Amino acid sequence: MLLRIDHVGIACRSLEEAIERYSSVFGLAVVSRETNSEQGVREAMMGFPGESGFPHDPPADEGQPAPHIPPGPPGYVQLLEPLGDDTPVGRFLARRGEGIHHVGYAVADVVSALEAIGGRGVRLIDRRPRHGSMGASIAFLHPADLGGVLTELVQPRGVHET
Amino acid sequence: MLLRIDHVGIACRSLEEAIERYSSVFGLAVVSRETNSEQGVREAMMGFPGESGFPHDPPADEGQPAPHIPPGPPGYVQLLEPLGDDTPVGRFLARRGEGIHHVGYAVADVVSALEAIGGRGVRLIDRRPRHGSMGASIAFLHPADLGGVLTELVQPRGVHET
Repeated sequence: MLLRIDHVGIACRSLEEAIERYSSVFGLAVVSRETNSEQGVREAMMGFPGESGFPHDPPADEGQPAPHIPPGPPGYVQLLEPLGDDTPVGRFLARRGEGIHHVGYAVADVVSALEAIGGRGVRLIDRRPRHGSMGASIAFLHPADLGGVLTELVQPRGVHET
Repeated sequence: MLLRIDHVGIACRSLEEAIERYSSVFGLAVVSRETNSEQGVREAMMGFPGESGFPHDPPADEGQPAPHIPPGPPGYVQLLEPLGDDTPVGRFLARRGEGIHHVGYAVADVVSALEAIGGRGVRLIDRRPRHGSMGASIAFLHPADLGGVLTELVQPRGVHET
């Protein structure tokens, strides 16, 4: 059901500092920047230039996915800065400090994946998909039923495989 | 420098329960099982059958990598059970409970990656590579210099790209 690791979500206090770190230390590049007020975050998706071949210039507009990025491997590092203390990522930072917040897996069909996983006794944070990064449909699963791992399902934009 | 997400490392109290969860809920399959006494863990690498095409039967012997698994995407979920309380993963469980422990990225050459990253001011937990899962050469970087993220470099067995 899960196709691959889509991204690792990392909570940070300063998005700009985190982008600078992943760029200068590891050579990753910004693929997309968005503000998602529903989820209470400013975020950046960082990609791996070596294999995916995208240019280093990020798209100019927030919320605009880069259409030349294929929705496949090698995955992304998602940097998340909370819009306020009373947001999921803001509470995570207060409780645990900066660090890995969740893992996202690509699925072909997030609606049918939610139905199957819910039927296996895992509590769903999102019973229906919502809008995620770069036009994806996403849904979160409850960490209490998954060994403490906040888990996200990601149906990338334009992907519906059977 | 980083090629892709190689794996997400997840700390668990019971490896068998975690394997059962990732198999039954998500359809992942055991690719490799090992005990790494140097790192103080029993572990399983779980793969994504849908894309990599490996058989569902895991290899019979602990520590024997499955030679038909290509060392590329779509990555692995690495389940880690500590061999004792006084191990890195044991201390992580005591402090934070079950959950995501680290993220591992594939590199072409772990020695040169360590040299470059160390030169950029990031403290290295391992100044020289050690033995990782499935015959890989691995090294850990200090989370204090990486926004709280325990980060692993992985040069998969047989991989040396330039």
